[in-house]
Amino acid sequence: SSTKSSATVSRNLNRFSTFVKSGGEAFVLGEVSGFVKDGDKLCVVLGPQGPEWQENPYPFQCSIEDPTKQTKFKGMKSYIAYKLVSSHTGQQVHRRYKHFDWLYGRLAEKFPVISVPHLPEKQATGRFEEDFISKRRKGLAWWMDHMCSHPVLAQCDAFQHFLTCPSTDEKAWKQGKRKAEKDEMVGANFFLTISVPTGPGASLDLQEVESQVDGFKAFTKKMDESALQLNHTANEFARKQVTGFKKEYQKVGHSFKCLSQAFELDQQAFSAGLNQAIAFTAEAYDAIGDLFADQPRQDLDPVMDLLALYQGHLANFPDIIHVQKGALTKVKESKRHVEEGKMELQKAEGIQERCNIISFATLAEINHFHKIRVRDFKSQMQHFLQQQILFFQKVTQKLEEALHKYDSV
Amino acid sequence: SSTKSSATVSRNLNRFSTFVKSGGEAFVLGEVSGFVKDGDKLCVVLGPQGPEWQENPYPFQCSIEDPTKQTKFKGMKSYIAYKLVSSHTGQQVHRRYKHFDWLYGRLAEKFPVISVPHLPEKQATGRFEEDFISKRRKGLAWWMDHMCSHPVLAQCDAFQHFLTCPSTDEKAWKQGKRKAEKDEMVGANFFLTISVPTGPGASLDLQEVESQVDGFKAFTKKMDESALQLNHTANEFARKQVTGFKKEYQKVGHSFKCLSQAFELDQQAFSAGLNQAIAFTAEAYDAIGDLFADQPRQDLDPVMDLLALYQGHLANFPDIIHVQKGALTKVKESKRHVEEGKMELQKAEGIQERCNIISFATLAEINHFHKIRVRDFKSQMQHFLQQQILFFQKVTQKLEEALHKYDSV
Repeated sequence: SSTKSSATVSRNLNRFSTFVKSGGEAFVLGEVSGFVKDGDKLCVVLGPQGPEWQENPYPFQCSIEDPTKQTKFKGMKSYIAYKLVSSHTGQQVHRRYKHFDWLYGRLAEKFPVISVPHLPEKQATGRFEEDFISKRRKGLAWWMDHMCSHPVLAQCDAFQHFLTCPSTDEKAWKQGKRKAEKDEMVGANFFLTISVPTGPGASLDLQEVESQVDGFKAFTKKMDESALQLNHTANEFARKQVTGFKKEYQKVGHSFKCLSQAFELDQQAFSAGLNQAIAFTAEAYDAIGDLFADQPRQDLDPVMDLLALYQGHLANFPDIIHVQKGALTKVKESKRHVEEGKMELQKAEGIQERCNIISFATLAEINHFHKIRVRDFKSQMQHFLQQQILFFQKVTQKLEEALHKYDSV
Repeated sequence: SSTKSSATVSRNLNRFSTFVKSGGEAFVLGEVSGFVKDGDKLCVVLGPQGPEWQENPYPFQCSIEDPTKQTKFKGMKSYIAYKLVSSHTGQQVHRRYKHFDWLYGRLAEKFPVISVPHLPEKQATGRFEEDFISKRRKGLAWWMDHMCSHPVLAQCDAFQHFLTCPSTDEKAWKQGKRKAEKDEMVGANFFLTISVPTGPGASLDLQEVESQVDGFKAFTKKMDESALQLNHTANEFARKQVTGFKKEYQKVGHSFKCLSQAFELDQQAFSAGLNQAIAFTAEAYDAIGDLFADQPRQDLDPVMDLLALYQGHLANFPDIIHVQKGALTKVKESKRHVEEGKMELQKAEGIQERCNIISFATLAEINHFHKIRVRDFKSQMQHFLQQQILFFQKVTQKLEEALHKYDSV
């Protein structure tokens, strides 16, 4: 009967489907087995909002600072190294972009239903330009913040190796690298490491899961659209401030300057104060123009950095959802097959149990996404508004300084 | 010898020259005489900045409010009447634009070396539109302020008649009008009414006067250029705020709105606060867009109104300067003729004395212009900056309100 059932619960015909590639199909069909060490166990627990990844009992942060140019091969090759300092070990290491890139590749392969944050974009030219380096550092800092915030990603071996292996110990680095690359708990096996809530009230309703995942799919689509639009608007708004707004305020400044120069042709004592005050006003408007041009770096750029990170996440979710949907389809199929007498109940129950694991993991990941999204967008909106307020206060201050010059006219 | 001299001190060949038209030439050549009543005397005195019009001993102001549509000929004809209230009499009269226009014509004819402020532009169409009426009222208020500020204009009969004659007393109005139109102390005769400082130290150095007037000519040219430029910039700045700036801020608002709508698809309790806060932020940016569009009315429009008034003055001064220069030329000519024995010294002294009167009046007018210019531009720059500050404070307040919405998220 084992032969019979494996013939009827058909394998996915598309070898390139994420469901197949991720190992999700093999896992659901019960074709995957392996020994999972206790340390590799990943727990999904039931929180107030449903399934959640078990919190990291030792939360930490890691800063990325001081990008510095380094050379090797007697100066033949240059690269930028970033200083990483982790709060849980206090350890300081130096890593290059290519190390981040290697780590990203490992994690993306290892975790089929976890959204590994994308790295800031690669760039072929201008790698050593200050603006690019500063922008990349900020992008990597956002990436790092998300890695450390994720209970599963933050605790995984490859990441810990990356954070703690001394930069000077080439041998240890290579050892850890090899170990990560030989990690067996990858893809299909990853699902084996997930332990889910058991007992009464802990089972998931299939239809409920499906509707939640469909809801999330609609959510990501709409969020992706609005993030794209906000990104475009922020970009345009920044451009307008750097060019248009700056130009307009400085034109006003220039006109006041011309007026004060005309007035200076009248050399009478009682008009000198006015001339100076208008000249000062001209300078104030010139400075306000510069403030407008400098401002996007303070408020819009961080918003766009955050949007870039989230656009990466949103690009990850279709695959994650696909894996979960594939698993659900298998369950439905197996139920039909049981009804038709083509599959043993026990086998179908196995499929449902394993699908349950994928569902738990997926819902935990969705919940995590919402939690950090609310946290990030809250703090980013606050930061944006604070910076805008500071900006308008600076403008007001400039104008008040100018106004006071007229007191003694 | 009288025949001889009138043949050699040549009359200006150009009958249309302002010097001729204004009566300046006839006056300088001593061809004008008439009896001046004490009440018609206009005194130039020596102030700290040189010649000045003697101050109005009874300074007053006049407000222009409540433009209302009125009809006559049983509703066949409509017009706008403005309520004028003068502070020195407390009297209230209603006047139409055409009354202002009549008065302007009288004054421009009467005072050759006084800059009579131009009326706000005529307009053929849209006379009854609210925006036009409000703009014209403001223009007339500026005009009135300048009339009341000018010692000579403020005290002249035609203006007083205009300010005080009851609107209902048609007969009295026509009488006063006829009297003003028959006024003999106009043009050339006007110069007879001017009394200038006498005694030692009160005579003007011809070269000094010439250099002062040349300096003022250069000043008006430069001020005219810069006023034109500032007016253009203010116009553009206003247009950019009404269209560009408004649009940019409202686009940001719209993008935030889209984001909050996307986020609302996630119905979990912990994200509702964020959604509301972002939606509120969207409204704040929309409101800021409107603030930008409304602002020019508060700060740039008054600047442009003031510039329009001064551009009128600046257009008056070439003629005033021309009269003074014509008089100076006559003096130089007469001196040469005396040296050549072609003119009697006494006659030349008479020419110089009368030129002196024109110079005193011109310098008094120039001084008055500078005084009110410094007063007006000081207060207008202060008003502009105060309104700009208020604007940016309103923007800041909107943003602060938005920021506080995140406190409880």
